[in-house]
Amino acid sequence: MGAIEKIGRNGSLIGKRIPKKDAPEKASGKARYVHDINLPGQLHAKILRSAHVHAKIISIDTSAAKALRGVHAVITAKDVPYQRPIGVSKDHWPLKTDHVRSPRDEIAAVAADTEEIAEEALALIKVVYEPLPVVTSAEQALRPGAPLLHGEDLVWTGPDGRTEVLHPASKDNTAMVMEYAQGDMAQGEREADAVVEDVFSLHYVTHCCMGVSGVIAEFDASDNLLLYSNTQVPFLHKREFAEIIGVDPARIRIIQPPIGGGFGSKLDIYPFEPIVIFLARATRRPVKLVFTREEEFIASPTRQPVLMKLRSGCKRDGTLTFRRVETLHDNGAYTSWGATTPFVMMQTVSSLYRVPNCDYKTRAIYSNNPYAGSFRGYGNLQATFAVEAHMDRLAEAIGMDPLEFRLKNAHDAGETTPQGMHFKSCGMKECLTAAAERGDYQRKHTENRRRWKDSSPIKRGVGMASMLHVGGGAKIYPSDGCGTILKMDDFAQVTLLTGASEIGQGSETVLAQLVCEELGLPMSAVTVVNNDTDITPWDVGVHASRTTFIAGNSAIGAARKAKEKILAAASGRFGVPADTLELRDGCVIDKTTGKKLIQIDKLIRSLHFSDKAELVMTSYYYEPPSKHQDDKYRGDVSAAYAWGTQVAEVEVDTQTGIVRLLKIACAHDVGRVLNRLGIEGQVEGGIVMGQGYALTENLIVENGVIRNPNFRDYKLVTAPEIPEMDVTFIETMDGEGPQGAKGVGEAPAICVAAAVGNAIYNATGVRITALPFTPENVYRALHSNSQPVVWPEL
Amino acid sequence: MGAIEKIGRNGSLIGKRIPKKDAPEKASGKARYVHDINLPGQLHAKILRSAHVHAKIISIDTSAAKALRGVHAVITAKDVPYQRPIGVSKDHWPLKTDHVRSPRDEIAAVAADTEEIAEEALALIKVVYEPLPVVTSAEQALRPGAPLLHGEDLVWTGPDGRTEVLHPASKDNTAMVMEYAQGDMAQGEREADAVVEDVFSLHYVTHCCMGVSGVIAEFDASDNLLLYSNTQVPFLHKREFAEIIGVDPARIRIIQPPIGGGFGSKLDIYPFEPIVIFLARATRRPVKLVFTREEEFIASPTRQPVLMKLRSGCKRDGTLTFRRVETLHDNGAYTSWGATTPFVMMQTVSSLYRVPNCDYKTRAIYSNNPYAGSFRGYGNLQATFAVEAHMDRLAEAIGMDPLEFRLKNAHDAGETTPQGMHFKSCGMKECLTAAAERGDYQRKHTENRRRWKDSSPIKRGVGMASMLHVGGGAKIYPSDGCGTILKMDDFAQVTLLTGASEIGQGSETVLAQLVCEELGLPMSAVTVVNNDTDITPWDVGVHASRTTFIAGNSAIGAARKAKEKILAAASGRFGVPADTLELRDGCVIDKTTGKKLIQIDKLIRSLHFSDKAELVMTSYYYEPPSKHQDDKYRGDVSAAYAWGTQVAEVEVDTQTGIVRLLKIACAHDVGRVLNRLGIEGQVEGGIVMGQGYALTENLIVENGVIRNPNFRDYKLVTAPEIPEMDVTFIETMDGEGPQGAKGVGEAPAICVAAAVGNAIYNATGVRITALPFTPENVYRALHSNSQPVVWPEL
Repeated sequence: MGAIEKIGRNGSLIGKRIPKKDAPEKASGKARYVHDINLPGQLHAKILRSAHVHAKIISIDTSAAKALRGVHAVITAKDVPYQRPIGVSKDHWPLKTDHVRSPRDEIAAVAADTEEIAEEALALIKVVYEPLPVVTSAEQALRPGAPLLHGEDLVWTGPDGRTEVLHPASKDNTAMVMEYAQGDMAQGEREADAVVEDVFSLHYVTHCCMGVSGVIAEFDASDNLLLYSNTQVPFLHKREFAEIIGVDPARIRIIQPPIGGGFGSKLDIYPFEPIVIFLARATRRPVKLVFTREEEFIASPTRQPVLMKLRSGCKRDGTLTFRRVETLHDNGAYTSWGATTPFVMMQTVSSLYRVPNCDYKTRAIYSNNPYAGSFRGYGNLQATFAVEAHMDRLAEAIGMDPLEFRLKNAHDAGETTPQGMHFKSCGMKECLTAAAERGDYQRKHTENRRRWKDSSPIKRGVGMASMLHVGGGAKIYPSDGCGTILKMDDFAQVTLLTGASEIGQGSETVLAQLVCEELGLPMSAVTVVNNDTDITPWDVGVHASRTTFIAGNSAIGAARKAKEKILAAASGRFGVPADTLELRDGCVIDKTTGKKLIQIDKLIRSLHFSDKAELVMTSYYYEPPSKHQDDKYRGDVSAAYAWGTQVAEVEVDTQTGIVRLLKIACAHDVGRVLNRLGIEGQVEGGIVMGQGYALTENLIVENGVIRNPNFRDYKLVTAPEIPEMDVTFIETMDGEGPQGAKGVGEAPAICVAAAVGNAIYNATGVRITALPFTPENVYRALHSNSQPVVWPEL
Repeated sequence: MGAIEKIGRNGSLIGKRIPKKDAPEKASGKARYVHDINLPGQLHAKILRSAHVHAKIISIDTSAAKALRGVHAVITAKDVPYQRPIGVSKDHWPLKTDHVRSPRDEIAAVAADTEEIAEEALALIKVVYEPLPVVTSAEQALRPGAPLLHGEDLVWTGPDGRTEVLHPASKDNTAMVMEYAQGDMAQGEREADAVVEDVFSLHYVTHCCMGVSGVIAEFDASDNLLLYSNTQVPFLHKREFAEIIGVDPARIRIIQPPIGGGFGSKLDIYPFEPIVIFLARATRRPVKLVFTREEEFIASPTRQPVLMKLRSGCKRDGTLTFRRVETLHDNGAYTSWGATTPFVMMQTVSSLYRVPNCDYKTRAIYSNNPYAGSFRGYGNLQATFAVEAHMDRLAEAIGMDPLEFRLKNAHDAGETTPQGMHFKSCGMKECLTAAAERGDYQRKHTENRRRWKDSSPIKRGVGMASMLHVGGGAKIYPSDGCGTILKMDDFAQVTLLTGASEIGQGSETVLAQLVCEELGLPMSAVTVVNNDTDITPWDVGVHASRTTFIAGNSAIGAARKAKEKILAAASGRFGVPADTLELRDGCVIDKTTGKKLIQIDKLIRSLHFSDKAELVMTSYYYEPPSKHQDDKYRGDVSAAYAWGTQVAEVEVDTQTGIVRLLKIACAHDVGRVLNRLGIEGQVEGGIVMGQGYALTENLIVENGVIRNPNFRDYKLVTAPEIPEMDVTFIETMDGEGPQGAKGVGEAPAICVAAAVGNAIYNATGVRITALPFTPENVYRALHSNSQPVVWPEL
C-alpha cells in the first residue's frame, strides 16, 4: 500500500532531472486558469478606458448603460467614494476622478450577464473630455513649461470626512529620485588612464504573459472577500487590497489559480482588480474580468525606456577606477514598481565588478506614456547592457583582452563591496572562464575583428557579458521570509503548505524535491499546496529570484522536523539511537549496514494507531540573514548572490541589418543544481526572453499611444530563432542556500542584450548604444543613418 | 487594523449564543453544494437499476446506448474487472455481476454530455433477467428453504489472477450476529418479583437529507483522483475507495462541499460513488452524478426494521434484576453499518440503568429489502423504545412511580457498568428530576390515568424516557483521534485546519469558539478549514456524536500552543512572567490589573517582523483515553457518556387514532453548554427527528419495493406539528471534555419515540409495541383490530 512501494528511488534527488509536477495538467490542457473558472451567478466586467491620452473629464453619463437589459452595475469614481489610490507612490486612482493621463485610464466599469452585454453598455457611456497637451517622453516632461502630470496633491477623503494628502504634487514631473555614491570620484577620474562615456537608450517592452490578466472577486454573505487572482505576492496584496477598498485585511482571501506567466508583471495591483471588487460589492455577485490580448498590451505593465549616461575609467593595468551614472526613466503616467528598478541597477553599477569610486543618480519622470512595472531582471538588463558595453570599451581602450579585463576586476568569494554586499559564495571568475571556453570566446573575438574590413556583407561576432543579481532573496519588506506547514498522512503522503507561489518557475517541484530529499520519499509522495492565503503560511511573494532559496530553506526546515519525529519513532521501535538511522527509498534504514528496517508509511501508521497516537505535523519559518539597506543604500540586502557570464555569437547581415543570434554559451553560478531539468528550463527561457529584449521586442509608443498591441506587430522570439545554447552550471555550494543552491530565476535574462551588443561590435566595429537591435535600427547604425544617443540638455 | 479592533468581545464565549459561521452562506443561498459545482469538461452520469427485486442477470446489451450521440461511456461489471465489493462485510459489488437482490441494484451506468442524454441511453440498455423468489422479511428469510441471498462465496479475482473469498456464503441468510452477557441470568430471574415480556416491532425510516446524494469524480493528468463527496468520514474513505477501485490511497483527495444533511447516511460508501469513479476513469473527464429525490429514497440507506423480544424483571423495591433481549434485524440485501447498530443497542440494554444480569442476542438477516445504514442514534432509538417501555411496565407491575423507579436504578458518576463503561461524569438523576419537573410529570401522570374511563374521546398522556449514548467518541477504529493545524496571519486571523468535518451540526462554529476562548479573539477572527483531505490532518470522521468532544479537544490543544507562543513573546517584550498575562478582547492583558498591554495582532506583527522573525503556527493531535472493547464487548468505549430524559405530553384522539405531540420537556447532560444557540438547534432538531420516527415517518416496503419514494407519501414532520419544547441542560463539567462539554449530536433523537409510547399508554391504557404511531396503527391498537407483535417461531 502507498506510493512508496510502487515508486522506489535510488540515491539523492539533488541534481536529477525532475519533470515539473504541474506539467501533466498544463500539457494536457487540464490546468484551470482564471479563464476557466466560472462561479455560479457570476457576472462579467468590462472597463471603459480614456478616449484621450491626456484630458480633464468634464462629465460622465452612465444612464443609458445602466438601463441596458442584463447590466447589473455601472460604476465611476463617484460610485466608490471610499476608493484609495494604488501603486508604489499612491498616485493612481483605480477609477479616475477628473483627470486621465493615458489611454489605458479607467473611467467607468460595467458588470453584466455576459461580456457582450458589458461591451455594449460601455458604448452607451457618454464622457465629455477637455483635452490637455500630451507629454511624450521623460525629456519633454522636464522641459520648462511642460504640462504637469501630477501637479496637484492627491487628496483622499475618509468616510469620516477627514482628508489626507496621499501623494504630494510633483512640481516638475519627477516621480522618484535615487542617489548613491561610494569612494572619491575625483580620485577615480585622476587615476584613470582610459575613460569612456556613452549615452545608452533602452526601449519599451512588455511581459507578454501567455495568460492575460484576469480576476474574479466575490463577497460572501458575511462580507468576506474572495479573490481568484494571478498575483505574485498574495500576502502583501491582502493588506494592499484591504487599504484600497477599505476593508479589514483579515477578511480577504486570495486564491491563485495556475498562472499563465508572471515575470514580475503581477507584483503590483492594477486598477482592474479593485474595479472588479467594486463591482462585486455593488452587485453582491461574483464578478469576473479577463483581459483581451489587446487590453493586455495596453493595460498591463511595461519595462520602461531609460536614458543612461555612463562614464567609466580604468588604469592601464586594467583596474577600474570609477563609474559615473545618470539615468532618466520614463515612468509613464503613474508610479508602479518600475520606478524602483534603479535600486537594482545601482547594485550592478557598484558591485558587478570591483570599482572603488562610483556615483549614481537616477530619476523616474512622469509622462503620458504607459507606466512601468517590475519585469524579470528588474532594471538589471538595462544596467548590464551599459556597464558591459563599457567593459569592452575600456578593455579596447587599454588594449586588453576583454576576458582578462573582466577577470582582473571580478570579485572573489568572501569580499564585501563598498555598497555592503557580502559575497559568501562567488563563482564569477569560474563563470567568466567557463563561458569563454564554451563559447570559444578569445579565439573568435580576435579573429572576428580581423574581418571588419572583409568584403563579405555577412559578419560574425562574439560578445561577452556578466551579471550579478540577488540570489538569496532581497530584504525590501520588513520580512523576506517564508512559512511552511507539513503534514503526513497514514500512507506517508506529504502535504506541504508553503507560502511560496508557483508562477510557472517550478517552485512547486523544487520544494517537493527538497522535502523528498530529507524524507527519502519519491516525488509523487509530496502534494504541494501553495495557492490560498487562508491555508498557507505567510511569504513575501515571488520576486527577486527568491523562492527556491527562501521557500526551499523553509521547506527543508519543516521536513527536518518531520524526519526527527519519524527517526525518533523508529529509534523507539527498534531500540537503536536515532542518529544511526536514515530515511531512504521510502524506508527507515540502518546507516551503517544500509539495511531497511521498516517502510516509512508503516512506521507512521504504527505511530498514529499506537497508544501514543501521534501524527507527523510540523511547521517552520525561515527568515534569511540578509539586512535592509540603510538610507544610503548600503547593506547586505540578500543572503546570497548569483553570478553568470554569457557569450553570444551573432551573424550580422550588414546589407539588411538583420542580426541572427547563433549561440549563447553561458555559465551561471547557481550555488548548486537542484532540479537539472527545471534550471535548464529557467536558463533557456531567460535567454530567449533576453533575446527578445535585444533583437525583436519593441512596444511602439507614439504620443502616448501603443501602436502594436498584438502579436503580429509586437515580435516575440519564436522557435526557429532560438539559438544553440550551451549551459554550464558553476556549483559554489552556498553555505546558506538550500542544499547549497542560490536563486536563478532572473539571472539568465540579464546579460543577453549586453552580450549581443558586444558581439555586434565584434562583428562590425560599430557600437550601437540604443536597443533594440532590430534590422532597421542596426542598418541605420551601420550605415550612419542614425544619430548617436544624446543626453538631453535640461 | 484587523478584526480585533472592530469586533471586541467581553468575557467568555462559553455558553453564549453564537450564530453558526456557515449560516449566512446557507441562509442567503450562496452556499455551493455538490449540486452547484460544475467542472470544465464535466460529464453527467446515470445508473441503470434492476427491473426485478430478485433475479439472475442473463445478459446485458449496451450497444445501442453506446451508439447514442453524446454518450461517452457505458459500463457494466464486465468493464470494471478490478472492482472490489463495498460495505461492512464486502458482500456488495458496486456494479452487479450476475445477481440482483433489490430494485436499487446497479447494473449499468452511462456518462454523457447531459443528464437527459444519459437518461435516454439507460432506456436503450437491454437486460435479460431470470427472476428469483423474493424474501420480504427477516422472518421469511430464516424459514427453512428460503432462497439464499448470498448463498455463494463472493470471490474476487485480482489483476494477477489470484482469487480471494471476500465474503463467504451465508447458508441461512444470516448477515451478522452479536451476543453479549453479564451476570447470572438464572439468578436475575429468581430474584425478580415482577417480570414483563413483550415483542417490539420497529419500522423502516430513511434520512431524508435535504441535499440528495451526489458526487463528482475526476482524475488529473497524473492519475490522482479528486472526489467532491458528501462523505462524513473522508479519511477512512480515502483508504476504502482506494481498495474498491484499486488505486493508491495516497493519490485520492476528497473535498467535501457543504453537505445538505448527513445524519449517518454518509458514513458508508454506496455503489454510485465507485461507479462515478469508474466512469471518470473510462472517460478521462470529470463525471458528476446527483440523485433525483426518488432515487434518494430508493438508493440511500435506511434505519432498518427490528423485531425485539425483551424480558425484564425487578424486585418489589424497584431494583432491576435482569434483562433478556433477542432481536431480528432486517438487514436488507447487503450489509452496511446498519448491521452493526446492535453494538449500540447493547449498551442501552446493559447500562442505561443498573441491571446486574443481562443477556443479549441479536441477528441481522438478509432479505430483498432496502439495506440498512447508520442513522442518528445508531440503534439506540430502537433499544430505548423497548427498554423504556419496560421501565414503565415494571414500575406499574410493582406499583411504583415511574420516575422513582428510574431514579432507583439510575447510575451515578464514578460508576463502571458490568460492560465496562466508566461514567466519569453522569447527570442521569438530575436529568430525570429536571425533565419530570419541567414536564410536570408526576402530577399529570397520575391524573391522566384517572381519566382512562372518561367518556371524552380526547385523551392526554405524559410519558418519560431516558437515554445513554456515547458522548466522548467511540473507539471503533484503531484511532478515534483528530488532528489540528493552526496558523495566525499578521492580522491575528486564525486559520484552523481541522480533520473534523462540518455536516451541518455546527462543528465549525464550536471549534472556532473554543479557539477564540483560548486566544481571546472574536468569532470572526477564526477561519475554519475542514473539507479537504489534502490539506487537513486526519480525523476518524463524523459519527458517534464525537466532533465537539474530540475535535474540540484537538483545537484547544493547538490553540493553547499558540497562546503559549504569544504570551512568551509578550513576556519578552514587557519583561514580565508569561503566567501573569492573559489573552482577552484581542489583547494581551495583565491578569492582575486587567490592563491591556498590546493588541494581539500588533504583537504578532512585531514577532514576525523582528529579527527573531517567527510566525504563530502550531499543531495538535488529540486521541481520547477510551479503549476498544474486548471480544466480549467489554471496555470503556467512549471518553465520556451523554445522558438525557425526555417527558412527552400527547393528546390522543381515540376516534381517529391521531396522536398530537404537545410538548417535550427534556433535560440533557451535555457536560457543559458551549454554544447555546447551536446546542438548542441540535436538541430541537433531534426531537423533531425523533417525533417523525414515532409518529409520521414510515418507509413503506412491499415485496422489496419502496411504495412511497416522495415527500407526498413519506410524511416528514412539518413546522405546525412541532411541539412546545422545554429544554434544560445539565452541566456536569466532564473532566475530559473540551471546556467540560460532552457530545450531544445524537442524544435528543433517541428517546422521543419511547416517551411518546409511554405517553400514549398514560393517555389510553393501551400499550402499543409497534412503531410508528400513525393514526391507522393507533386506531387499530385502541380498537383491538391489531394483533400484538409476535416473535416468529423459527
